Amino acid sequence: MADSWASLGIDLHLEPAGGSGLRRGLTDALRDAVRTGRLAPGTRLPSSRALAGDLGIARNTVAEAYADLVAEGWLTARQGSGTRVADRAVAPAGGAGAPVRRRPPGRPAHSLVPGTPDLAAFPRAEWLKAARRALTRAPNEALGYGDPRGRPELRTAVAEYLARVRGVRADPGSVLITAGFSHALRLLGSVLHGRGARTVAVESYGLDVHLGLLAGAGLTTTALPYDELGTDTRGLGGESAVLLTPAHQFPMGTTLRPDRRAAVADWARRTGGLVLEDDYDGEFRYDRQPVGALQGLDPGHVVYLGTASKSLAPGLRLGWMVVPHALMAETVAAKGHMDTVGVLDQLTLAEFIASGAYDRHVRAARQRYRRRRDALAAAVADRAPEVTVTGIAAGLHAVLRLPPGTEQGVVRAAHWQGLALHGLAFYRHRLAVAEPLDALVVGYGTPPDSTWPTVLEALCRALP
Amino acid sequence: MADSWASLGIDLHLEPAGGSGLRRGLTDALRDAVRTGRLAPGTRLPSSRALAGDLGIARNTVAEAYADLVAEGWLTARQGSGTRVADRAVAPAGGAGAPVRRRPPGRPAHSLVPGTPDLAAFPRAEWLKAARRALTRAPNEALGYGDPRGRPELRTAVAEYLARVRGVRADPGSVLITAGFSHALRLLGSVLHGRGARTVAVESYGLDVHLGLLAGAGLTTTALPYDELGTDTRGLGGESAVLLTPAHQFPMGTTLRPDRRAAVADWARRTGGLVLEDDYDGEFRYDRQPVGALQGLDPGHVVYLGTASKSLAPGLRLGWMVVPHALMAETVAAKGHMDTVGVLDQLTLAEFIASGAYDRHVRAARQRYRRRRDALAAAVADRAPEVTVTGIAAGLHAVLRLPPGTEQGVVRAAHWQGLALHGLAFYRHRLAVAEPLDALVVGYGTPPDSTWPTVLEALCRALP
Repeated sequence: MADSWASLGIDLHLEPAGGSGLRRGLTDALRDAVRTGRLAPGTRLPSSRALAGDLGIARNTVAEAYADLVAEGWLTARQGSGTRVADRAVAPAGGAGAPVRRRPPGRPAHSLVPGTPDLAAFPRAEWLKAARRALTRAPNEALGYGDPRGRPELRTAVAEYLARVRGVRADPGSVLITAGFSHALRLLGSVLHGRGARTVAVESYGLDVHLGLLAGAGLTTTALPYDELGTDTRGLGGESAVLLTPAHQFPMGTTLRPDRRAAVADWARRTGGLVLEDDYDGEFRYDRQPVGALQGLDPGHVVYLGTASKSLAPGLRLGWMVVPHALMAETVAAKGHMDTVGVLDQLTLAEFIASGAYDRHVRAARQRYRRRRDALAAAVADRAPEVTVTGIAAGLHAVLRLPPGTEQGVVRAAHWQGLALHGLAFYRHRLAVAEPLDALVVGYGTPPDSTWPTVLEALCRALP
Repeated sequence: MADSWASLGIDLHLEPAGGSGLRRGLTDALRDAVRTGRLAPGTRLPSSRALAGDLGIARNTVAEAYADLVAEGWLTARQGSGTRVADRAVAPAGGAGAPVRRRPPGRPAHSLVPGTPDLAAFPRAEWLKAARRALTRAPNEALGYGDPRGRPELRTAVAEYLARVRGVRADPGSVLITAGFSHALRLLGSVLHGRGARTVAVESYGLDVHLGLLAGAGLTTTALPYDELGTDTRGLGGESAVLLTPAHQFPMGTTLRPDRRAAVADWARRTGGLVLEDDYDGEFRYDRQPVGALQGLDPGHVVYLGTASKSLAPGLRLGWMVVPHALMAETVAAKGHMDTVGVLDQLTLAEFIASGAYDRHVRAARQRYRRRRDALAAAVADRAPEVTVTGIAAGLHAVLRLPPGTEQGVVRAAHWQGLALHGLAFYRHRLAVAEPLDALVVGYGTPPDSTWPTVLEALCRALP
């Protein structure tokens, strides 16, 4: 039994600023300790009171960090036995192949954390067919050490697809294949730093892990204001770059307004700044006005970033960038002297896109997600009239606006209903310039179709 | 036409030390310029005399750099039209999908550069079968964001395989899946630097690209002596780590002697130093005494590094590390907060190994390569009695010892025979502590079986 922090022997890097950064720092440190096996399954954690005393922080902060990790399945909390490290599906370092428990006690039954599509809908049979065609046709040299930009077949297919569907101006020579968005952002961070950049503007809402990747490259971030019209880009100044989700702000769900798109393009032309356009779910648009990529306005100043993680599956570890000509050599050099992404998946995706299977899959997924979105909006309107569903014109998640002061309580209630999800506070950057709002971020893409009605019912029970 | 260096507009980072580092720096800068499209196909380079004058270096150095790049296929040299950038199979940045020319004029017809196995022998049908079984069986969650250590199925299969075949002491919890050896070395460089390491010992012979990866992590390298008995580890001192190829020195082909293995293990225990064991072709041993991995001696101080690049194909981008327990958390953190290697290939390789297909494939490949090795040794004995074939107890390459002073001439003659290959000087590190030897490094794994007799004949014609 560990009753003080010191006895856990964990390195803590807490934000001295306090507030939500403190809680997130604690949550991250604990999650890392569990994931890497430094905290073994079954380990009892100190009480929130004891730990708060050790660290000199508010007890509530510790309790909330524990609650987050219970919701994510890393910890379990049971009356009488305190908070413990959960039995994990993946064995810890040095721990050999412990048998997998499908759902440890206390682990949430369903996830509404956005970012992962419905994995049960991955087109396994179609993918295997494409893999067979691709591997049968591939020249032998394709199996060797490859061009760091990626296979020409995939760069060609991606360039054509993005031009057609997203209005991106690309040719195969301007496309770079990556192992997903994080890999791309890591490369760009290194390129920017190498060019002398020190500051990148980000939106007020987003994922901390992206800030971490930029920080890892030696870049600091400033936050753009967010108001009732969405992200406000008009104040962009001396930053070297800006990271944006123009088609569908993550997680707020708004689209960057035309005048604010223009402000970004003007800023980039005026200052030579670089726009990093994160188009993570550009395919999933439900209304009749698809929003083209910002890159189409100014290919010389925008790096377009796309991924197969939302349209197909994160496990593929496939993404793509469209890189301005002047930046290509440095970006390739950052990736390395040879390709680092598996060739067989690249060839398969190229075949999958070129054969039309990708379009068919996206179309079917769009219909399925649209039905879920409609069911969510209808259920909330019916069961929780105080709650407003927003950000639903596109994507795989919605933002449920809650009555002021209720967010934490609703998140906790949802956890009790067996749902893993986050309040909006989780996505609010430390430096955010935005009125705090009470809201839930509901990723409706993840649950398989079969459980969706159950999940929706559990969610409604948690709403005020 | 470019007749002076300045007009090419290329950044050159030349080693002020001169010697072979100068030539390599020039070769690398030119290769990069061609690869990234800064030097377009067809561009005429300055004469070696003009360029040498511009740079204030010896004309021979330029001529040798050009010859290397002609051998590698980046440049072409023809009487009367000077040295030009070759038409490349892969279109340069911004250059769209130019049609692929199978063999541009001047490009070598066959490669004897070691490092790539016979890609025509990749087991496509067996691999597709394994992919089908793996994807059919995979749980949905396998397609999501994954554990940064890699899929448990593959870590389990690799741990069992390495224990059985290479005497490695591993369990699934100590295995980390990577995108190949370079990825692994990059991670380890970052871990070592993070621990305060500044110096890593390497062997006198090896690949410059590995030194580059260590340098990129902020580490400097020192060279271990190489004598007639192989790499001499007895002088290891205050270095933080040592990078070794104990089973089969690359490229010399020697096996680390038992007393020198013991010296490494003693040094590691005494100083806490870390051994990075590069076991790149440990599977391909032709004599009756397979050499177990050094890691088996001391799993607490050795990181074992393996790859599918030689046994299957580099394009898979799959490798593995067995990491000491105390280093695991930092190595995982260096890899990132989630897996970066495609899950489908991981699951397929796990199935390929577990089903016995990997063993069968390696066994068949071993027989095929052994026949080539025997043919090479016999042909050289017959046609070039002054040349000695060494380093052939294992692996996919041999070292042909040449009469003193003949290496450069033989390499050039081989290029004229349409062969891409390097002399031993190419693999000699700048700080090497070893008597210079005249030799050719002949990778006999790469050519397909159908062309092997032709290649062997061309090689013999180039020998003295």
